[in-house]
Amino acid sequence: MTLTLQPIGVVRTPYGETRQIPKGPDARHDAEGTLEIAPEFETGLTDIEGFSHLFVIWAFDRVEGYDLLSTPPTDDRPHGVFATRSPRRPNPIGLTVVELLDRQGRMLRVRGVDMLDGTPILDIKPYLSSVSPDKLKRGWLDEADARRAGGVSR
Amino acid sequence: MTLTLQPIGVVRTPYGETRQIPKGPDARHDAEGTLEIAPEFETGLTDIEGFSHLFVIWAFDRVEGYDLLSTPPTDDRPHGVFATRSPRRPNPIGLTVVELLDRQGRMLRVRGVDMLDGTPILDIKPYLSSVSPDKLKRGWLDEADARRAGGVSR
Repeated sequence: MTLTLQPIGVVRTPYGETRQIPKGPDARHDAEGTLEIAPEFETGLTDIEGFSHLFVIWAFDRVEGYDLLSTPPTDDRPHGVFATRSPRRPNPIGLTVVELLDRQGRMLRVRGVDMLDGTPILDIKPYLSSVSPDKLKRGWLDEADARRAGGVSR
Repeated sequence: MTLTLQPIGVVRTPYGETRQIPKGPDARHDAEGTLEIAPEFETGLTDIEGFSHLFVIWAFDRVEGYDLLSTPPTDDRPHGVFATRSPRRPNPIGLTVVELLDRQGRMLRVRGVDMLDGTPILDIKPYLSSVSPDKLKRGWLDEADARRAGGVSR
């Protein structure tokens, strides 16, 4: 089974180069950007302005190849790619939760972008519910935080 | 730009047919299932067992075509496809948050599946943080809930 996808639009962000994007899964992403949806899909945005947050599913279009293990910027140890947000994934799909600030026709102004300018958008979905913070465990991320806080590198 | 993807595995669920899946975005999804990752990607699961919740990105492989407007099971009014979780989307990508219960090698037992048995998995990512419930607005969903609670259909 092979799935062939075509973008429904592009994201406009302040980031022309990867090094400009705040690093690591804990980085604050307050940057504003615009989801520019192609004219033929504008009708699909009907009523989206009622939602405060959206999932944006997008393509790492400037990445080639993947690594099953990699060392994230927030740790000094390698982890499996599916336990990280590494761009070098078997299927180069990105997922970002953004806050919807404003809609003007097919332009959605959002906060929280972490993709490169011009990134192709594959899908947008409403963010409907959250996992309760007391039920959330964050594996190696919490362990790496604890090691850094204690000044112990390994 | 065209993106061609191949599954990294399949989801095993109790649902052989669409009508068995609890309907609507508010439906409780407590069903357990298994993410069966292909052997060549097992190394990519390293350290995933530390996370309590995962994003599963998957393909609606038994859907053809899309509608820009559709009436969800939870409402009597049409909404734009990007404001719903309709399977009939321009890019047939599904997104589900599951709770990770257990890992045995390349088999992840999870709670919260809402896909058909045999659904192709495209990617898995750790669920790292939630939107605070007091900041979350759910647009037409909340309005439809309010109309139902008030016994007013339109």
